[in-house]
Amino acid sequence: MSRAGQMIETHPAQAPVDAEKLAEAIDACFECAQTCTACADACLGEGNPEDLAYCIRTDLDCADLCNTAGRVMSRQTAVEPQMVRAAVEACARAAKLCGDECERHANHHEHCRVCAEACRRCEQACNDVLSAL
Amino acid sequence: MSRAGQMIETHPAQAPVDAEKLAEAIDACFECAQTCTACADACLGEGNPEDLAYCIRTDLDCADLCNTAGRVMSRQTAVEPQMVRAAVEACARAAKLCGDECERHANHHEHCRVCAEACRRCEQACNDVLSAL
Amino acid sequence: MSRAGQMIETHPAQAPVDAEKLAEAIDACFECAQTCTACADACLGEGNPEDLAYCIRTDLDCADLCNTAGRVMSRQTAVEPQMVRAAVEACARAAKLCGDECERHANHHEHCRVCAEACRRCEQACNDVLSAL
Amino acid sequence: MSRAGQMIETHPAQAPVDAEKLAEAIDACFECAQTCTACADACLGEGNPEDLAYCIRTDLDCADLCNTAGRVMSRQTAVEPQMVRAAVEACARAAKLCGDECERHANHHEHCRVCAEACRRCEQACNDVLSAL
Repeated sequence: MSRAGQMIETHPAQAPVDAEKLAEAIDACFECAQTCTACADACLGEGNPEDLAYCIRTDLDCADLCNTAGRVMSRQTAVEPQMVRAAVEACARAAKLCGDECERHANHHEHCRVCAEACRRCEQACNDVLSAL
Repeated sequence: MSRAGQMIETHPAQAPVDAEKLAEAIDACFECAQTCTACADACLGEGNPEDLAYCIRTDLDCADLCNTAGRVMSRQTAVEPQMVRAAVEACARAAKLCGDECERHANHHEHCRVCAEACRRCEQACNDVLSAL
Repeated sequence: MSRAGQMIETHPAQAPVDAEKLAEAIDACFECAQTCTACADACLGEGNPEDLAYCIRTDLDCADLCNTAGRVMSRQTAVEPQMVRAAVEACARAAKLCGDECERHANHHEHCRVCAEACRRCEQACNDVLSAL
Repeated sequence: MSRAGQMIETHPAQAPVDAEKLAEAIDACFECAQTCTACADACLGEGNPEDLAYCIRTDLDCADLCNTAGRVMSRQTAVEPQMVRAAVEACARAAKLCGDECERHANHHEHCRVCAEACRRCEQACNDVLSAL
């Protein structure tokens, strides 16, 4: 079990959704925040950053939204479902958009391929939490 | 004009919405991220934090969502309206929920009153951007 | 008085340093986080982002460090001076580095000129807090 | 290999330090940002949050500093060692302070025990990067 899973289990309150799904979504969000931050930077380091401007920008936005959703889902005290939903929906949409964009460059840039995988995992995990909320 | 406004004006790309509305929303988001961070901490420092758990938690979530929306709106290169919409809608909802909660404590805690004002300004400014997108 | 100043005044605990200096540093950190986020994006939107890679990267790092310092200084409960010092020192150093870099491009890019001003204000305000801690 | 490790390997630039150490530090920072966010919230959900105010506050600061260091280390383009050092030193200090505090509550609160482990891992990994820079 990841440390996110252990934190859910040792929390005094019940998780608002199935603990395994929640842990997966938290882990996926933080992972995606990391890969998107790194992918924006890797694109910037390629020889043609001007051709990758859309990818860089999408990565940066997605990193911010994933990070926020990961934080919000890490909180189990005084859960407000509307707040959680707002954060997780925004993140799922960002991961969809960023995954689509990175996939377009996956054949040319391995970092985009890895980042697209992280985006797909994040999108799926967020949607699973949204279904369960 | 705030520095956010100057950054919009000096950007090589056109702002995706009216520059004045955008600057107001960016300023309101960062201000709200600050007041919510401070309000969570002030509530924690009151004698009865257990009675303010919902307010603290809502403040922390709102701070994260405002910060992210402020960052996303600060970017004008390769704008993806769906991404901007995702971030700003989530922020507007968070500011609504947090403003409502802080208002409940506004008579007892001056920091909640000030924070509620920042939330209302943020909610309004985000909604103005959403209408213009 | 800015809302950051009002939040300091209405907090149940005493500010760890002079309230005016603290408010100035908080405001300067959030402003600098915003201008650096916008400057990275504006540089990316220029015709030659590959020539501005160092500026973009420095902007992104500085934005993150300013944002964190602004949050840490917004908290007045259970102050740990070593923690505050760690965050504010890192921010002052980042603002120095980023201000120097942006100044190099100030004649070519107005957004770098505005961003450099925000970095200088932030560096100064952080150093004033560090002296007073 | 974690996705952070894959992102390092597929980046067009060389990592500024040993790739394995860097990946470990990035993973440890994002993990610690997560556990600290969750631990602050778990402490808030205990029956006596007023007794845990120092722990909550330290957790929140540490989460912010870890998150920022994780982002800064995820970037390998145009590395400025002074910037990386500023972010990673601040994070190592925060993880030390937070690990010490959480350890004090480890016998009473399992979430503090898990969080202390994440802080120790993060502190160690950051120090390993600092030695190698």
